[in-house]
Amino acid sequence: MPIHYDFASDNAAPAAPEAMAALARANRGFVSAYGSDATTTRAATLIRELIDADAVVRFLSSGTAANAIACAMLARPFETVLAFAQAHVVNDEAGAPGLFGHGLGMTPLAGTAGRIEAAALATALSRPDTPHHQPPGALSLTNATEYGACYTNDQVDGLVATAREAGLGIHLDGARLANAAAAGFDLRRLGRSGVDIIILGGTKAGLPAGEAMIILDRALERRLDARLKQAGQLASKARFLSAPFVGMLEDGAMLRHAAHANAMASRLAAAMPFPLVHPVETNIVFAAIDDSALRHLHAAGWLAYRAPDGSVRFVCSWATTAERVDELAEALCAARDRSGQS
Amino acid sequence: MPIHYDFASDNAAPAAPEAMAALARANRGFVSAYGSDATTTRAATLIRELIDADAVVRFLSSGTAANAIACAMLARPFETVLAFAQAHVVNDEAGAPGLFGHGLGMTPLAGTAGRIEAAALATALSRPDTPHHQPPGALSLTNATEYGACYTNDQVDGLVATAREAGLGIHLDGARLANAAAAGFDLRRLGRSGVDIIILGGTKAGLPAGEAMIILDRALERRLDARLKQAGQLASKARFLSAPFVGMLEDGAMLRHAAHANAMASRLAAAMPFPLVHPVETNIVFAAIDDSALRHLHAAGWLAYRAPDGSVRFVCSWATTAERVDELAEALCAARDRSGQS
Amino acid sequence: MPIHYDFASDNAAPAAPEAMAALARANRGFVSAYGSDATTTRAATLIRELIDADAVVRFLSSGTAANAIACAMLARPFETVLAFAQAHVVNDEAGAPGLFGHGLGMTPLAGTAGRIEAAALATALSRPDTPHHQPPGALSLTNATEYGACYTNDQVDGLVATAREAGLGIHLDGARLANAAAAGFDLRRLGRSGVDIIILGGTKAGLPAGEAMIILDRALERRLDARLKQAGQLASKARFLSAPFVGMLEDGAMLRHAAHANAMASRLAAAMPFPLVHPVETNIVFAAIDDSALRHLHAAGWLAYRAPDGSVRFVCSWATTAERVDELAEALCAARDRSGQS
Amino acid sequence: MPIHYDFASDNAAPAAPEAMAALARANRGFVSAYGSDATTTRAATLIRELIDADAVVRFLSSGTAANAIACAMLARPFETVLAFAQAHVVNDEAGAPGLFGHGLGMTPLAGTAGRIEAAALATALSRPDTPHHQPPGALSLTNATEYGACYTNDQVDGLVATAREAGLGIHLDGARLANAAAAGFDLRRLGRSGVDIIILGGTKAGLPAGEAMIILDRALERRLDARLKQAGQLASKARFLSAPFVGMLEDGAMLRHAAHANAMASRLAAAMPFPLVHPVETNIVFAAIDDSALRHLHAAGWLAYRAPDGSVRFVCSWATTAERVDELAEALCAARDRSGQS
Repeated sequence: MPIHYDFASDNAAPAAPEAMAALARANRGFVSAYGSDATTTRAATLIRELIDADAVVRFLSSGTAANAIACAMLARPFETVLAFAQAHVVNDEAGAPGLFGHGLGMTPLAGTAGRIEAAALATALSRPDTPHHQPPGALSLTNATEYGACYTNDQVDGLVATAREAGLGIHLDGARLANAAAAGFDLRRLGRSGVDIIILGGTKAGLPAGEAMIILDRALERRLDARLKQAGQLASKARFLSAPFVGMLEDGAMLRHAAHANAMASRLAAAMPFPLVHPVETNIVFAAIDDSALRHLHAAGWLAYRAPDGSVRFVCSWATTAERVDELAEALCAARDRSGQS
Repeated sequence: MPIHYDFASDNAAPAAPEAMAALARANRGFVSAYGSDATTTRAATLIRELIDADAVVRFLSSGTAANAIACAMLARPFETVLAFAQAHVVNDEAGAPGLFGHGLGMTPLAGTAGRIEAAALATALSRPDTPHHQPPGALSLTNATEYGACYTNDQVDGLVATAREAGLGIHLDGARLANAAAAGFDLRRLGRSGVDIIILGGTKAGLPAGEAMIILDRALERRLDARLKQAGQLASKARFLSAPFVGMLEDGAMLRHAAHANAMASRLAAAMPFPLVHPVETNIVFAAIDDSALRHLHAAGWLAYRAPDGSVRFVCSWATTAERVDELAEALCAARDRSGQS
Repeated sequence: MPIHYDFASDNAAPAAPEAMAALARANRGFVSAYGSDATTTRAATLIRELIDADAVVRFLSSGTAANAIACAMLARPFETVLAFAQAHVVNDEAGAPGLFGHGLGMTPLAGTAGRIEAAALATALSRPDTPHHQPPGALSLTNATEYGACYTNDQVDGLVATAREAGLGIHLDGARLANAAAAGFDLRRLGRSGVDIIILGGTKAGLPAGEAMIILDRALERRLDARLKQAGQLASKARFLSAPFVGMLEDGAMLRHAAHANAMASRLAAAMPFPLVHPVETNIVFAAIDDSALRHLHAAGWLAYRAPDGSVRFVCSWATTAERVDELAEALCAARDRSGQS
Repeated sequence: MPIHYDFASDNAAPAAPEAMAALARANRGFVSAYGSDATTTRAATLIRELIDADAVVRFLSSGTAANAIACAMLARPFETVLAFAQAHVVNDEAGAPGLFGHGLGMTPLAGTAGRIEAAALATALSRPDTPHHQPPGALSLTNATEYGACYTNDQVDGLVATAREAGLGIHLDGARLANAAAAGFDLRRLGRSGVDIIILGGTKAGLPAGEAMIILDRALERRLDARLKQAGQLASKARFLSAPFVGMLEDGAMLRHAAHANAMASRLAAAMPFPLVHPVETNIVFAAIDDSALRHLHAAGWLAYRAPDGSVRFVCSWATTAERVDELAEALCAARDRSGQS
């Protein structure tokens, strides 16, 4: 029986045609290396337009590295980064911030559906600054969150203001920023929000690979390329990392695809026979499914994983079709019936 | 006037059609992530066949990271890696081994045309092992070398034997291993040589990006994926890193293209109006060109850089044409004539 | 009004006379540096006798560094160290294990009075070994614990056996190991327990400074001095670090002083007018004291800090006198009466 | 036959009586930990007076760590520190700057007798700032130098001015700064020279252990204690590190002892039967001694080591007596005669 990876993660999806076409178009002739080529320049311009801000933009191959390097740019080894307790950067990166940040700490904050609560941030900032504990150097936000929720611009502005007042740098993990934007999060307001570094995810948005590091605090620009080179994140044939961004951004394909993914998640949520655990605001659905039902679902060929909070996660992507959503919903109903979960 | 990047580096070249076609072929449907997909499995098999050895194979996006991680796998922070004084890993990686290796040292060894001299290795190994200096933990070889020379299998075997006897691990930087193979270096013998980790370069061989990490010492396999994940080198959509290797390996395109690049370098060497500085054994030509002549060459639109030894470097690739070689040779003659260099 | 630091911490105490006398005795003539002197040799021998094991012994100036380096010797950067949630190494070292261990993780385990529960260890070991999370590389125990409790030898043996079966290395933070020994913990059994590295604390035991790193797994010995040198923990005038150990060990002063400190804590516990929060098994007393009462105590000149669990900590040392214990008890009673805490 | 360590290094010497007396004096009563005690406050004041500057002062146990941490405070991992090619921090610290600096580079500069040549600094600063090489972030000077020479204040001011103009931070390794001061180097001028961090060596100056970190750039002060704590260099019983500085500084013993050590080196130089290799400006003598003569010297019980430049080094200290100098001179003459070196 074939295994259906469709909803296992958005990185199970193929690359979008606009990304692949741009890759093919960029593959012409000899060009300068390390990011000084025309394709990479064009991609950076498109990203500045997307957020309507004068930012430094670089293209990295890995979201893990991009987020970890951003943390290391904002917090020193004897400082800590405040983040949602189950944020990817805290929980799913095998300790990358500690490696790239040479021992920097990650301090988990409480929240709901992946959104940090203002009170949790305030409490963390009120702790005394002693030499025995790593004091906070930065705040890391994720939008859309790991639990598929979407911060509003007001919420982000509020957290950013609190953190900046305490002298923290701000990082935004935007692995699914396109999904947030498609759900109404204003990227132009984000560009003026006081966030220092945004990582705009390409991989989960339909590129073959690649994340854009968007640096809004120009004081961080000095010797940035040496920093990236040392970290193995300065691509020599940069056009192949940047071209898919051109393809996905120049006619709005990235947001269009993200809106589709979000719509597919809504469709799945509507048909979900198990209780929803988090609000479905972007492209992910979390449901309370017991072990027996999950085994039945797996037995039917559908891959799905438990999240750290115990719920089962289903991720939609640009490539998810309504037909597959309906097939999954049917399989979920069957699994529920067979398991007897009520 | 357009600038000709053709000979500036092999990473100025486009990707080879076989690589791009394989990329397109791999872009079908939903597959499992992080390297457990069929394309990645196939690429690993092809690489094991290439070196005729039972190796663990991973696909990384960056040669800088791949070589630095390999050094960190073989030498501890308080140890050093012995390498040719102007090896890429010593000289052109912005200190990546020190970052990934947490302070490990790089000890430059003397040699000719990038080949480490046996005597230099012996001297380094004879130094007393005191706590005040980082003692050698590993030997790093590069083939083809930074200066376009090619170690013979006997030479590699000799250095490896000496280093292993001293308890060192062995890393081979194969950014241009395809060019070495096309020049007669036997990859199957390499697979049995006692080298612990080979980095088989894809980027310079005509892929859009990607290096294969080939681990021959199976003791290094434990928790390898966690190591790579933490280092930002475990691609989620792994098929897009591995597919080009499939395209370039399954019908021999990689070696065929490398042979072409080598032939173009020979053609250029034959026509070179300036003294050759290193033997032209693979795809790079180094010539003694004075500043005046180099300025004339640049003024004619041809980019070429000085190597650390002061010579000027011209790199051929799979995409270099005989016509362009001849145009360059003509431009070189004109530059020589205008500058009066004799 | 003078401030009484007597019970603030055992590092507020002066150095014991036996330690200072040995320091003075060692200060004769010219000797070889970096630990090859006779005093250091003698101290290492005394420590091997103490634990009745053939260990490699080094003398470090810092417990923070000693424990962090031990963690780095046992767990790699992409692995984690399992430890009690409020262990010093997790909670009070400003992230030292992450710095010396280059990003290694610390995973908090549940327990009571600082003792890790067997079930918590088992749960941590049962988690799947995926590349996305740092898998456990080592177990770190502390005896006496941060909460003044004392593991029995059976308890340590049980945890060690479980951890070793899972392939973990074992570190024991013995900042107050002398207090544990004085409370009945058998150091000779510890030497045969399967622990890989013991850090025997000198500072809190009455030395001016210094911790002994006791390495029982001889595979960790290779290039140990280079490791310590790089970490700034290979003292050149080693005799001044090791001599106090000679003074404190050769006639049993260390354990005698620790027994006295333990007895003083028992005396304080017996007189404590506030509820005890943890069993008083060694030299520390934790009491439930509200803010008002604590303010009254501070106002009376007695320094005491809240522990992470909210209780207030009183630490006795070799230099604590019964008179001072009684004075403190009186001040505590007065604070209770004034605050009205019941 | 007894071995004479007298001239092997200044860390073979015992601690000076003024240092030991201060240690004993500080050993009274309970005091606050981590550097807030009166002894440590007093020592910091004495050091500020010594250099006549408003500096932040901390006391570290290790010169290796102190210098490495200073480098890490001034240069980032993808930058390099310029230093004399055989400076201790480059050559004798087992790579400590790379560990504490997370991969920062050390770039060797040419010079004579340990003094960096202005031209070598200028050349290093003129190299293009590319992402492929670690660009200079800091300059590290050593005074007195590893070869016993002494920079003049003018020389230091010149190098500092050049480096500051290029945006570099400045570190001064003062392991033998007392010897330089005794030779006429003005510490008050040093305090106004633009150096950012001075490490004032205690160990080689006659303390049992301890180095003072003197931070003149107050921008580096933020969270300094957390940085030191994480690095294992925030002593809990700080009084025992700082007290010897009080004893050595409050009546000028440090400079008096250093002047004696310098005088002993002059006496040895005057009697030296082998060619002097470097000018004898402080407390070390380097002589050209062949292997045969050195073997005879060793056979006579006198320890002496070859420096990296091949010469043999003899170090005088506060404890060196004229009688021992004369005995050594005699032994050297005998060794010369027996070996026949001319």
